[in-house]
Amino acid sequence: MTWTRRHLLDLQSLTAEELTVILDTARSFKAINGRSIKRVPPLRGKTVVNLFVEPSTRTRISFELAAVRLSADVVNFSAEASSLKKGETLRDTIRNLEALNADIIILRHSASGAPHYLARFASAHIINAGDGAHEHPTQGLLDTFTIRERKGRVAGLNVTILGDILYSRVARSNIWALLKLGAKVTLCGPPTLVPKVFEQFGCRVTWNLEEALRDADVVNLLRIQHERQRVTMFPSLGEYTALFGLNQARMKWVKPDALIMHPGPINRGVEIEGEIADGPQSVILEQVTNGLAVRMAVLFLVNGGKATETE
Amino acid sequence: MTWTRRHLLDLQSLTAEELTVILDTARSFKAINGRSIKRVPPLRGKTVVNLFVEPSTRTRISFELAAVRLSADVVNFSAEASSLKKGETLRDTIRNLEALNADIIILRHSASGAPHYLARFASAHIINAGDGAHEHPTQGLLDTFTIRERKGRVAGLNVTILGDILYSRVARSNIWALLKLGAKVTLCGPPTLVPKVFEQFGCRVTWNLEEALRDADVVNLLRIQHERQRVTMFPSLGEYTALFGLNQARMKWVKPDALIMHPGPINRGVEIEGEIADGPQSVILEQVTNGLAVRMAVLFLVNGGKATETE
Amino acid sequence: MTWTRRHLLDLQSLTAEELTVILDTARSFKAINGRSIKRVPPLRGKTVVNLFVEPSTRTRISFELAAVRLSADVVNFSAEASSLKKGETLRDTIRNLEALNADIIILRHSASGAPHYLARFASAHIINAGDGAHEHPTQGLLDTFTIRERKGRVAGLNVTILGDILYSRVARSNIWALLKLGAKVTLCGPPTLVPKVFEQFGCRVTWNLEEALRDADVVNLLRIQHERQRVTMFPSLGEYTALFGLNQARMKWVKPDALIMHPGPINRGVEIEGEIADGPQSVILEQVTNGLAVRMAVLFLVNGGKATETE
Repeated sequence: MTWTRRHLLDLQSLTAEELTVILDTARSFKAINGRSIKRVPPLRGKTVVNLFVEPSTRTRISFELAAVRLSADVVNFSAEASSLKKGETLRDTIRNLEALNADIIILRHSASGAPHYLARFASAHIINAGDGAHEHPTQGLLDTFTIRERKGRVAGLNVTILGDILYSRVARSNIWALLKLGAKVTLCGPPTLVPKVFEQFGCRVTWNLEEALRDADVVNLLRIQHERQRVTMFPSLGEYTALFGLNQARMKWVKPDALIMHPGPINRGVEIEGEIADGPQSVILEQVTNGLAVRMAVLFLVNGGKATETE
Repeated sequence: MTWTRRHLLDLQSLTAEELTVILDTARSFKAINGRSIKRVPPLRGKTVVNLFVEPSTRTRISFELAAVRLSADVVNFSAEASSLKKGETLRDTIRNLEALNADIIILRHSASGAPHYLARFASAHIINAGDGAHEHPTQGLLDTFTIRERKGRVAGLNVTILGDILYSRVARSNIWALLKLGAKVTLCGPPTLVPKVFEQFGCRVTWNLEEALRDADVVNLLRIQHERQRVTMFPSLGEYTALFGLNQARMKWVKPDALIMHPGPINRGVEIEGEIADGPQSVILEQVTNGLAVRMAVLFLVNGGKATETE
Repeated sequence: MTWTRRHLLDLQSLTAEELTVILDTARSFKAINGRSIKRVPPLRGKTVVNLFVEPSTRTRISFELAAVRLSADVVNFSAEASSLKKGETLRDTIRNLEALNADIIILRHSASGAPHYLARFASAHIINAGDGAHEHPTQGLLDTFTIRERKGRVAGLNVTILGDILYSRVARSNIWALLKLGAKVTLCGPPTLVPKVFEQFGCRVTWNLEEALRDADVVNLLRIQHERQRVTMFPSLGEYTALFGLNQARMKWVKPDALIMHPGPINRGVEIEGEIADGPQSVILEQVTNGLAVRMAVLFLVNGGKATETE
């Protein structure tokens, strides 16, 4: 199967075959990142713009390194100092970047749907690096890649996602990828943040942590974003930790070969105890490594690369 | 004719022949930007510093990409985190960059004359990326390039510049380039911002918008900088739009083949209606594309490149 | 002698032989920085991260250019927008960068000992770019390099360091390097900032400026950091200048061939008169140039380069 899409906007609209092409391509690139010389030529002479209207050093650096290792020229464009502050529309910003011959624009934006809107007129390739509470497709892909690599498959696995599901773009992208590839997805957390409506997508919803953990092959903990906490919906940090934090006592409910995942940055002692994050079941740092490979694959494919020619 | 200058400080001191060398060189580079692999080797191993004491993402990125596509190594240096904040003089900052073997320093500064001052002692090549209300030479060049490319010539054309002329470095650089190349320049806007003294440079000054638009082959709209508006000199935004904003009704005064230009970022509905900015007479995005080619030409020429060897 | 260390954390733990290997290697790289094409291939395909938790444009750019001229890929990571602000520990930040296959991490941090702590578990090479009031090893190296290049030797020279010794990492790194290489070090400044305890390291301590200057072959002036002045320990700026500022009258106490050094950025008229900074005995800008060569040498050596193969 060949990749034919010009953009990566979400995982909801991808087929299982398309997801698999990305994951297989990422596997080839992962090998390159482990080498002494971490550069291959596919995007040589191409211009990649990191347009981060909402700041994120972690994701920005991962995309930047992914582009650099494919030999692209990368320009960073953050919201703070940008013409968006001078009243320019996002559409005009994008058209200006295209007028500078940008080949690929990586967009992080606080508004859900911003990359879809741009893709309707953009001649550059658009990659969604997180849009509001909607999707964060490369995060969903790297999580799925990590599960597949560690477990040998995705189909048939029980994956539990734990935390603030309602406002999480990471949860949404994971749900789409996992369901399409045949996993069974359980969502768990405080009732205000894990509404029953998610059952309509084909997920199991439970507010009982023990039930959510008992049969899980993978436990994916979402980050508690206490720096921008929604007062009305969210319990106190202490209350969250007491009720849903993953600690040693609750690890007894978790299967000994279940993977512990987290998109990072982790809050040690809040949603996860430090010992578990550093423990043998944790694959948190592997997720970071795989993120780079997945992003190289996405940059490569939207630019027209063939999955069979990764070098 | 060969280029012999070490710096690009302004357009006022250039001859028509020198302006033409830059425009001709830019034409060669424009072709490179349209290619799949947008890199040529002339500045390989050279160090270019973007020293933006006054922030400007748009111009900074254009210069950064211009340098990268010529294969230079580029370092960005912004005012916010710099040693200028620690009380260092601008002269000492420049000498420190030269001690780091910087070959070309691109300076954006709020003080008129800052690049001229530096050029008196600098061993690096200095490029003025906008100094106070004085000049913004690469903007004047890219505007002139766009006019010449679209109209086939500059000499004899009627060019109207509309807006806050008094405080505009864009207006000044345009005026010098256009007059030297033989265009007739009309300045228009509110009387407080378009003083009669500009007639001494050889421009026509009028406060009558219809008169300014009727015979224009080119209408260049300046940006209303409402984020740093001068309260005492400037009417309200609404008043400016009512009296001088370019709208569909006033487009009837404009010749059907006249070019509509704007240095960006545009304020849709203020100095220009969105439909006109997106309309068939607008060349606003072409200006952005041409800016890159012009900046490549300037970097190439000040570094000692010959106009006949652009690859 | 061959370099065998994986990190550069301080100068206190280096031997005279190791210091000499770095200085000799830097000498080779200095020649490269004077060339027209300032790039050599030793770090091609390597990823270098500039992790500046405490801001410093000057040192960051010097390291960035050093890495770029060795053909490394460089990513800048500043504290302002980073995940450290989201409550991530420094240890987790470093492990995340390693998960992105960072080969070398250059760390500037306000906490003394931060790089030593990281080196205990890091697989990447750690370079200390200044940690609290502890050490700034590449500054100590570049100062020593400058002295050796100008004077032909270090052993036996009288070097006076003048200013806020107590809180200065620059002073500490200089003291270690100079003593190990056989220089005699005198410390001078206000008694509150130059305690007698430094005599235990083998330095001479004096609060008498004339005595400190009379026999000096090198006078190294520390920067008065008036932007973060410690009110209780420090006299007023005017009082410091009156008592310890280097001016023309006091230059009569200085030997005519003594070197005047300063780590920059200088405060003209505070710790040094402008005419002296620009005068024939000043090597302040040479220090900047040598800093680049020293940093190239350090990056090259920690990455496993041999001192005899600098190209």
